Amino acid sequence: MKLCRFNGDRLGCVENDTVYDVTAALNALPALRWPAILGDPLIRHLDILREAVGVARRGANAQKLDEVRVHSPLTNPSKVMAAPANYRLHVEQDTKDAGVDAGVHRMALEGVDRPAEYYGLFLKAASSVVGPTEGVQIILPDRRTDYEVELAVVIGKPGHSIQREHALSHVAGYCIGLDMTVRGKEDRSFRKSPDSYTVLGPAFVSADEIADPHALTLSLWVNGERRQHSSTGAMTLDIPELIAIASTMYTLQPGDVILTGTPEGVGAVAPGDEIRAACSGIGEMSVRVTQHPSSLT
Amino acid sequence: MKLCRFNGDRLGCVENDTVYDVTAALNALPALRWPAILGDPLIRHLDILREAVGVARRGANAQKLDEVRVHSPLTNPSKVMAAPANYRLHVEQDTKDAGVDAGVHRMALEGVDRPAEYYGLFLKAASSVVGPTEGVQIILPDRRTDYEVELAVVIGKPGHSIQREHALSHVAGYCIGLDMTVRGKEDRSFRKSPDSYTVLGPAFVSADEIADPHALTLSLWVNGERRQHSSTGAMTLDIPELIAIASTMYTLQPGDVILTGTPEGVGAVAPGDEIRAACSGIGEMSVRVTQHPSSLT
Repeated sequence: MKLCRFNGDRLGCVENDTVYDVTAALNALPALRWPAILGDPLIRHLDILREAVGVARRGANAQKLDEVRVHSPLTNPSKVMAAPANYRLHVEQDTKDAGVDAGVHRMALEGVDRPAEYYGLFLKAASSVVGPTEGVQIILPDRRTDYEVELAVVIGKPGHSIQREHALSHVAGYCIGLDMTVRGKEDRSFRKSPDSYTVLGPAFVSADEIADPHALTLSLWVNGERRQHSSTGAMTLDIPELIAIASTMYTLQPGDVILTGTPEGVGAVAPGDEIRAACSGIGEMSVRVTQHPSSLT
Repeated sequence: MKLCRFNGDRLGCVENDTVYDVTAALNALPALRWPAILGDPLIRHLDILREAVGVARRGANAQKLDEVRVHSPLTNPSKVMAAPANYRLHVEQDTKDAGVDAGVHRMALEGVDRPAEYYGLFLKAASSVVGPTEGVQIILPDRRTDYEVELAVVIGKPGHSIQREHALSHVAGYCIGLDMTVRGKEDRSFRKSPDSYTVLGPAFVSADEIADPHALTLSLWVNGERRQHSSTGAMTLDIPELIAIASTMYTLQPGDVILTGTPEGVGAVAPGDEIRAACSGIGEMSVRVTQHPSSLT
């Protein structure tokens, strides 16, 4: 099942290049009230939703996916986590660029060969999440903002101290993630958290549709030129290891997102650029880069 | 108005040492549905709630505050932010302890005299938030966990690029915060985010009840011995400056929490300890320290 959020808050079921409007399925979700429990309600109730989507799909209105406005499938993740320096070639190649964040990368070159194990994961603000339609708004125009394409893992059920061998059973599905990053001296969880600096899309693909999440091809183009291209199999710590490490520290909640690290080829973007990101089995999305209104004074 | 959450999910209005059950006021909150908007619904609708609490207060059942189970007044903050090294004496005194995190403190000693301006704020996971009743569960018993008492600022309305002179109008209120911290090498947003490592309580105190948030006395005791004691006036960056800096990077949402830094006197706790934290104008809370079940194997 591939779900998207489109044209405001409509729920879509994606089949090939067509989106079917299954918004009626949302009526199956239990009512929310205070205190809102942590975690994305759509993902928490995916089993209920799957059946309702099946019913709503019959006779649903269809539109071409590239003719609708696509937003983030996740609206309220309680945690957006990300793995530092989790592709070896990214560390080897991109740290030759002095503008790329020095901290983790230098340490990695100095002998920390499994950075996400050594440093743990870092957090990004939930308020940084947008979909491809909203695009990326450059926050500090005189600073460097880099793209980083990643496989985003969406957690499906609560868990703490999850063992490696059970970890994939905690995965609800996947989407493409852009971990946009202001380079510089600030705490990583600050400079990676501006509004629009986490782009998720184009759809949430349930885990049963992905035979092997470590055999996906992840690519990114800027203005039509390919900049990143790798297999997810090149991750230093694989998905079960990242889930195990994260859940030693905190409980993972349904709808929590783990960005699994970016392969080699990161670089800067500027207002006017167009990013295209693709992942086999998930789809592709185009993301326009503009300037944040706060910098247009 | 002082609000608390108690005995499960009951809403209380606190007057002196008494809590009045105003749970009926929650019916005034608008229904929540997918996509859940970011931010704590209680704080987002505080104006509506204030009137309803007034109505529910008449004839409400009363209990002694110290006879109920007190939970975190905030249940779903979209962001928990914290200011690094924001009390000068903390930096000067506590960094002589080699076990205290070296990074920010050493840099501070080396000439960065406004660390929160230089490094920005860091994030803690929303899943780390508990109230005093839940207590702190030590996650890694062979590592050092420190207490840090702080004034927690609760944001009341959305804002980006908030100017210093308007910043306090974005504050809904205050509570006491414990920014529990595993010392060590991991990313700050990881080792400060275990479940129960952000204790908020005992009540949310609306801003109109605090004449000057920079003239509050903040204290912490471990097993009856006072360890921390300072005026919030000793903050290096004050609350308007922290709000201004945070909102240059991201939108602040209702219910977002800014932990404003800890004064001198931090130190380690262990299972069996009891922490008591107090802040003038807000109240006090007792927090038991236990061992996380995952470490009891």
